[in-house]
Amino acid sequence: MGEFDLIRRFFQRPVRRAALGVGDDCALLAPAPGMQLAVSSDMLVEGRHFFADVDPRLLGHKSLAVNLSDLAACGARPLAFTLALSLPRADAAWTEAFAAGLLALADAHGCELVGGDTTQGPLNICITVFGEVPPGAALLRSGARAGDDVWVSGTLGDARLALEVFRGTLTLPAAAFELARRRMETPVPRVALGLALRGIATAALDVSDGLVGDLRHILEASGVGATLDADAAAARVALGTPDVDAGLDIDTLRLCALSGGDDYELAFTAPAAARAAVEAAGRAAGTPVARIGRIDAEPGLRIVDAAGAPVAQRFTSFDHFA
Amino acid sequence: MGEFDLIRRFFQRPVRRAALGVGDDCALLAPAPGMQLAVSSDMLVEGRHFFADVDPRLLGHKSLAVNLSDLAACGARPLAFTLALSLPRADAAWTEAFAAGLLALADAHGCELVGGDTTQGPLNICITVFGEVPPGAALLRSGARAGDDVWVSGTLGDARLALEVFRGTLTLPAAAFELARRRMETPVPRVALGLALRGIATAALDVSDGLVGDLRHILEASGVGATLDADAAAARVALGTPDVDAGLDIDTLRLCALSGGDDYELAFTAPAAARAAVEAAGRAAGTPVARIGRIDAEPGLRIVDAAGAPVAQRFTSFDHFA
Repeated sequence: MGEFDLIRRFFQRPVRRAALGVGDDCALLAPAPGMQLAVSSDMLVEGRHFFADVDPRLLGHKSLAVNLSDLAACGARPLAFTLALSLPRADAAWTEAFAAGLLALADAHGCELVGGDTTQGPLNICITVFGEVPPGAALLRSGARAGDDVWVSGTLGDARLALEVFRGTLTLPAAAFELARRRMETPVPRVALGLALRGIATAALDVSDGLVGDLRHILEASGVGATLDADAAAARVALGTPDVDAGLDIDTLRLCALSGGDDYELAFTAPAAARAAVEAAGRAAGTPVARIGRIDAEPGLRIVDAAGAPVAQRFTSFDHFA
Repeated sequence: MGEFDLIRRFFQRPVRRAALGVGDDCALLAPAPGMQLAVSSDMLVEGRHFFADVDPRLLGHKSLAVNLSDLAACGARPLAFTLALSLPRADAAWTEAFAAGLLALADAHGCELVGGDTTQGPLNICITVFGEVPPGAALLRSGARAGDDVWVSGTLGDARLALEVFRGTLTLPAAAFELARRRMETPVPRVALGLALRGIATAALDVSDGLVGDLRHILEASGVGATLDADAAAARVALGTPDVDAGLDIDTLRLCALSGGDDYELAFTAPAAARAAVEAAGRAAGTPVARIGRIDAEPGLRIVDAAGAPVAQRFTSFDHFA
């Protein structure tokens, strides 16, 4: 047996729900009768999605978290995933820690590792995740209607603030940096909220490249426009709250909230008549939700301040080829 | 729109069978009622699975072919796949050619691209493929029984011969090299044969790392041993047939057939009573099949020549961390 097979063993466990797990040419999934299968793939690359010296346990968590976040954005219940891993060398200690972080989050969501691939090469992690959703119940990007509210879950912008500290463009007090770093390294996929929003939200996606850029996908798919309250969004930055006292000005808070990226929160729309239902879904899921704008019939995205006046500041999306 | 999005567009086409394709947080698959979903992931890395200067159209073909080969080995009918792609830079010409090769093979098998990811990084291609199979019908590695024949489809060893020419360890006549190179660059996934072998084969897998190494997976999973005829296997090397006249000695032919790797043929077992049924399945699928050994109750793998005498030559598997 080569090191190749030994490494693979860290990921091999008996399956519970799948018909067949790791170890054959294919895994076999048996979706519940009548259910559709939601599928999403994300690839994480060293230097682009994480630093070379990241704690492998945290990287294992994040690699699955960003995929579960896509299931959450569709209102799908996690079922299983595959892992393809390219490693520069067979490093047992690194792989064991990576597997521990990965499988802890998988267990927390009842999401089984059913198969994958291991090879030698530049560090690259590709996960494909599967979830179940009843036909017609998936939250899509195309259902937003004029008059809907725009909502966002959890907090925005903190992961970007941590990144800027690592890049050396920003200095933060130690406690604020630790908080931001946790948001960057261990994002929380909003799976329970996605499930609770079935039948309530008209459109949803997960915020990975920055709110403004991602929200445009909903606007395009739905054929609508939106007005976004930059100050309501800025209020979602954990580091902007008085008890953290990170000393950030409003322009920085707005920028991080609107175009930070790496948030893995849900942005979604719902009719104004459903406000109480959205609030109840947030409480049921244990996830804060906040209204930050409204959908307009007029195309385009208008960014205003708390008083409704246009904001001149420019907010662009984080592009992987920028 | 960034180059990132433009590149993604090469892969975006309307879906036919899936409930939702590329462009949302998840794709939605609607498996036929009662069917199980066979799932497999393969990751291809530059320098390990292909050369940097490979024709991107051929690479597109091969990237999907090696995944379809896993479905074939399970007797599953291709349904859909996701593609995650890491590219050093946004190269439209390269990506368009890659997509053309990939999608041509996908169309030939009715296998839809339903989602994926594109990012910047060292060239890496990760495909996850989905197929349908009725419950209990999947060809597994664990069903081989003492007395079963060992079969292999198509040809063996030619891809490895091409690789050795590229490595400079071997010289071949031009025509023979072209044939071998085609086998290396455009493997043919044995999907039709896998489907035809449902209910006939007792165990199956696809030969990717070399016949001897891969066959051991069947022996371990089934708790059996085998006797393999090295000369019957060597006779499966296309470059060993008289009309090609590549001038290869029997030791080279045996080595390439038994431990060449990159074959993407099916190795499978079936009861001796099913020989006519296996031959008929091969004819129905348009794929040659040949008997190259038998399953024994005694554990271990014994390699013999055409006369039944043990072969002293050593045949090891191709290990990605060797």
